[in-house]
Amino acid sequence: MDIADVTMVDVLRAVADPIRLRIVQVLADGRPHGKCGEHWDFGVHKSTMTHHFRILREAGLTHTVVSGRTHTIELRRSELDARFPGLIDALTAG
Amino acid sequence: MDIADVTMVDVLRAVADPIRLRIVQVLADGRPHGKCGEHWDFGVHKSTMTHHFRILREAGLTHTVVSGRTHTIELRRSELDARFPGLIDALTAG
Repeated sequence: MDIADVTMVDVLRAVADPIRLRIVQVLADGRPHGKCGEHWDFGVHKSTMTHHFRILREAGLTHTVVSGRTHTIELRRSELDARFPGLIDALTAG
Repeated sequence: MDIADVTMVDVLRAVADPIRLRIVQVLADGRPHGKCGEHWDFGVHKSTMTHHFRILREAGLTHTVVSGRTHTIELRRSELDARFPGLIDALTAG
């Protein structure tokens, strides 16, 4: 999905959920994270996390990179920062 | 509603809608606006605007001031800026 096709409302809908907001806050470091990593110990079922990861990807916030049997997820940080200045910073502040 | 009781997810849910996001962008000037003002010519019915105004107020983003027969709405700008640094700016950027 081209970042130009992502609207601010798309982004806000995607992060307007406690778990997805926390995922984005973790991913805000800009690095790739394994989908099964220790970061995601949010007390919900793996299938729930998969659901949230998919919503973030389909909304255009993240990329998933598949390499062999490893899936990593990363925030499209630089693209999001260029299109929505200050938004990711604001979501991770405080 | 005490601003300390407003969560970031509450705010994001409230603005994750095209009309409510535009309302917040107009109110971001920090001034009181009449509820029937020319700002709100969004092509939707007055009752729809009333619905959106109520959601914003109940989420803790705005105050309504009733003075005689005049209702004005204003963003709790300084409180929101203190609690969620940079968020309102990011919503109004671009």
